[in-house]
Amino acid sequence: MPQREITKLTLYGNTESGNCLKPRWIAELLGIDYDWVEVDIFAGATSAEEFLQLNPAGQVPLARWPDGRVLPQSNAIMLYLAETEDSLLVPKDTFKRAQMMSWLFWEQYSHEPYIAVRRSNLRFRDMAEADLDPALLSKGRRALGIMEMQLTYTDWLVGDVMTLADIALVAYTRVAHEGGFDLSDFPSVERWISRTESALGLPHANPAEGAAL
Amino acid sequence: MPQREITKLTLYGNTESGNCLKPRWIAELLGIDYDWVEVDIFAGATSAEEFLQLNPAGQVPLARWPDGRVLPQSNAIMLYLAETEDSLLVPKDTFKRAQMMSWLFWEQYSHEPYIAVRRSNLRFRDMAEADLDPALLSKGRRALGIMEMQLTYTDWLVGDVMTLADIALVAYTRVAHEGGFDLSDFPSVERWISRTESALGLPHANPAEGAAL
Repeated sequence: MPQREITKLTLYGNTESGNCLKPRWIAELLGIDYDWVEVDIFAGATSAEEFLQLNPAGQVPLARWPDGRVLPQSNAIMLYLAETEDSLLVPKDTFKRAQMMSWLFWEQYSHEPYIAVRRSNLRFRDMAEADLDPALLSKGRRALGIMEMQLTYTDWLVGDVMTLADIALVAYTRVAHEGGFDLSDFPSVERWISRTESALGLPHANPAEGAAL
Repeated sequence: MPQREITKLTLYGNTESGNCLKPRWIAELLGIDYDWVEVDIFAGATSAEEFLQLNPAGQVPLARWPDGRVLPQSNAIMLYLAETEDSLLVPKDTFKRAQMMSWLFWEQYSHEPYIAVRRSNLRFRDMAEADLDPALLSKGRRALGIMEMQLTYTDWLVGDVMTLADIALVAYTRVAHEGGFDLSDFPSVERWISRTESALGLPHANPAEGAAL
């Protein structure tokens, strides 16, 4: 990752990472011009001195602007891009916005650490299923069950319009099968995945058709 | 936890939990009238059917209003309370608000899972230090180091005024010594803890004087 002069919003990320795709999808959806810098997280690029100078936390995604500002954290970047574009992806209603925030925090604490981590272990770290912490499967299924309960009643996580909550949650839910999660047990979640993928213009990450990003 | 008629904002939480104290501190600071319902998380009260009807995710804190609305997730509740009160704890400047959000997400993903979990294991689950995952200590110290870097330059995490980021992060940082973290290695963090405790009207959780909530 060479030093570079940047002339527009630059997103540092890895295309295998759902967290990194979230702000990229938002930029695409809102027509925000950006450059993408691919960061090889599996080769330790986020621990390199050069990257730590940009983000001491050593994490992607990272947004960087020509005036020197940087912003880490997938959900914070999404929020900032959507707010500066005054996008309807962030509800104007205060309580609906709070519900969206609640899903965003829940995603990072109670969904990603199980569903994304199990997928990463199986797909990128070549771990055997038998060697995985069994809690990853049970807690991941619990998370999917909580989404199923909501999506049985509403088309989107915060009611009748898509918000950042759907985009954040779909990032790893649509590839949950790569982590050994059987989504056919969660039919409302499956329909919501298709709905969200259509809204984002993404191909369907169909388990029967093999892996998708 | 009996069924109850509620007549004002009700916060369900456990006073041993930093996550639960966050919205309570905000309510106190902003003069919001509330009832507190103590939930015995160690006796499985969050898994009881009655509680799951309020929050299927089985987590505290949970905010509930007389009109039936409920909101989970500590940081989402803090944000909602501060926004509805138009509090300066949420910066008006869009980018500063984004930086605050970034710290809030980082707290839940890269700080709480190490610092709060190690404290919980030692203090509430009576685990021996030798039985703990060594990553809890190294990753927790890494998190403290990232805060130290910021707080060497600024009095508060997002510059020169206290925001929700400071309140969220102080919740478990001020009791990190109960998780076996030596805060004397992080002098700027120690001074920031005192500063934030003063602003919140909290007693100093001084390691030398024993445990504090």
